[in-house]
Amino acid sequence: MNLPSEADIRAAHSRIGKFIHRTPVMTSRQINSILGCELWFKCENFQKVGAFKFRGATNAVMLLDEKQKTKGVVTHSSGNHAAALALAASMNGVTSYIVMPENAPEVKKRAVAGYGAEITFYEPTLKAREETCRRIMDEKGAVLIHPYDNFNVICGQGTAALELIEEAGVPDIIVAPVGGGGLMSGTSTIAKAVKPGIKVIGAEPLNANDAWQSLKSGHIIPSVNPKTVADGLLTSLSQLTFSVIKRNVDQILTAREETIIEAMLLVWERMKIIIEPSSATVVAVIMENPGIFRNKKAGLIISGGNVDFRKLPF
Amino acid sequence: MNLPSEADIRAAHSRIGKFIHRTPVMTSRQINSILGCELWFKCENFQKVGAFKFRGATNAVMLLDEKQKTKGVVTHSSGNHAAALALAASMNGVTSYIVMPENAPEVKKRAVAGYGAEITFYEPTLKAREETCRRIMDEKGAVLIHPYDNFNVICGQGTAALELIEEAGVPDIIVAPVGGGGLMSGTSTIAKAVKPGIKVIGAEPLNANDAWQSLKSGHIIPSVNPKTVADGLLTSLSQLTFSVIKRNVDQILTAREETIIEAMLLVWERMKIIIEPSSATVVAVIMENPGIFRNKKAGLIISGGNVDFRKLPF
Repeated sequence: MNLPSEADIRAAHSRIGKFIHRTPVMTSRQINSILGCELWFKCENFQKVGAFKFRGATNAVMLLDEKQKTKGVVTHSSGNHAAALALAASMNGVTSYIVMPENAPEVKKRAVAGYGAEITFYEPTLKAREETCRRIMDEKGAVLIHPYDNFNVICGQGTAALELIEEAGVPDIIVAPVGGGGLMSGTSTIAKAVKPGIKVIGAEPLNANDAWQSLKSGHIIPSVNPKTVADGLLTSLSQLTFSVIKRNVDQILTAREETIIEAMLLVWERMKIIIEPSSATVVAVIMENPGIFRNKKAGLIISGGNVDFRKLPF
Repeated sequence: MNLPSEADIRAAHSRIGKFIHRTPVMTSRQINSILGCELWFKCENFQKVGAFKFRGATNAVMLLDEKQKTKGVVTHSSGNHAAALALAASMNGVTSYIVMPENAPEVKKRAVAGYGAEITFYEPTLKAREETCRRIMDEKGAVLIHPYDNFNVICGQGTAALELIEEAGVPDIIVAPVGGGGLMSGTSTIAKAVKPGIKVIGAEPLNANDAWQSLKSGHIIPSVNPKTVADGLLTSLSQLTFSVIKRNVDQILTAREETIIEAMLLVWERMKIIIEPSSATVVAVIMENPGIFRNKKAGLIISGGNVDFRKLPF
């Protein structure tokens, strides 16, 4: 299997540079003092569409050939990837088809439509989703851009860690959340290339610890109906992301739901920035494993800031 | 009455520069597009203690003479000024005495204590507050640093607008919230000095529109038990701040409670930053008066980001 390399990620960074925000890297003396370590937050909550997903989507769209660009792109998602692909496509003059469940929140439907996508709804079953997606690929000739099981998407996601290291220097530890593994695949690839001795840690909710289980058992164990506030981390690894993660990730740490909520509040209160529960998971694993981080310099990928303020978990 | 001048504010800025954060000036293409104007947010929510109050408190503490510094400072406040004065004093090796009502929220008591202040509690009546404050001034020889009825505090608060103008250029309009009038006094002084033609607008909750009433009637009309989510804007003007505001402020605009909440959510959702309801009032008056701002460049003083997440108004 062809795995992404440092060169692929650096090339992606040059390619997408003028479309993405170069998001700030922030630190908080108060949080450092509370947690006993030196933390550098790469704030992808300030990225376009409010999440790192815009990086991967932009890289994938830009790497389409001219014929593919005239046909368009398709994905099935009700989350940040849908919005990211819609905007990336629109900024590149490409049509996007987003396949969403009928019961997706209105706010997400409006956001995706606002970015110029054509939305097709399906009855919320896995079968209906795949059939709808397949039909659009057949009818329109659109290229499927998977949220994470996609080489070019992974290379785009890795550019956040590249910028973090450029700005804050090489940390002792780098932590990213693990859902489908796209962000972690890109992050770990660039981190290990820059410094093989860096410790790469994945953060997962205890209630959706499929990557932890998969690494332990040596094969992919899918997530089955996980219940967690970290709604960006519900998905399972793919063969591609599992291969990268097996090679590069030193450890998966998990956090309990109450710690994730506590971590989210800590960052909101002390840093005055909105981070989503999936990003808070990264801070939560530090709170649950202080010994691993004590007096260490750690770079954290804050994946996004899309929160439903009418349904807060506290 | 001796009113602050441009030179006083510039001197304050040089004085406090190494103690304060130079907070970012942010803009949001999405919010500009929604509101039809070009907005530059001076983000004092990222200031130390989470509010602009740290500027004025630092300036006031630094301008004490050596004898006063050995005696300490005192103030009565349960809000951002208490935390600001406690931290400013502690960073300058000065003792601070904070007089707080017994029923102040635990989180505020802990914050002020954490910044090294000596807290004295009083029964929550105006009489007990003044007596307690007076007693500490007599016993300790401490200097009262009023939250806004203080020349040096006003000069410190004006440095936020100075930085905003340095960074974003001179806007057509500058807007700051009006509570006791300290922030507005400093803001309007520097703005009118830099460009006499700039339009200076104060933002108030309709439910606490005492500055609007005072300007209209020509004398101070105090706020009486106002009920508003903008809990930093409950106080009344002083003779000093009213004199500055009468001279410099072109207009006070008010906003309804539901607009203030809507504005707060708009900024949280689109900019991913935490602003407090008092700051949202600034955005709310734009939403209620779009004609005044259409196609204009406006600088907004975002006063702070201290929010009780357990008691959100939505």
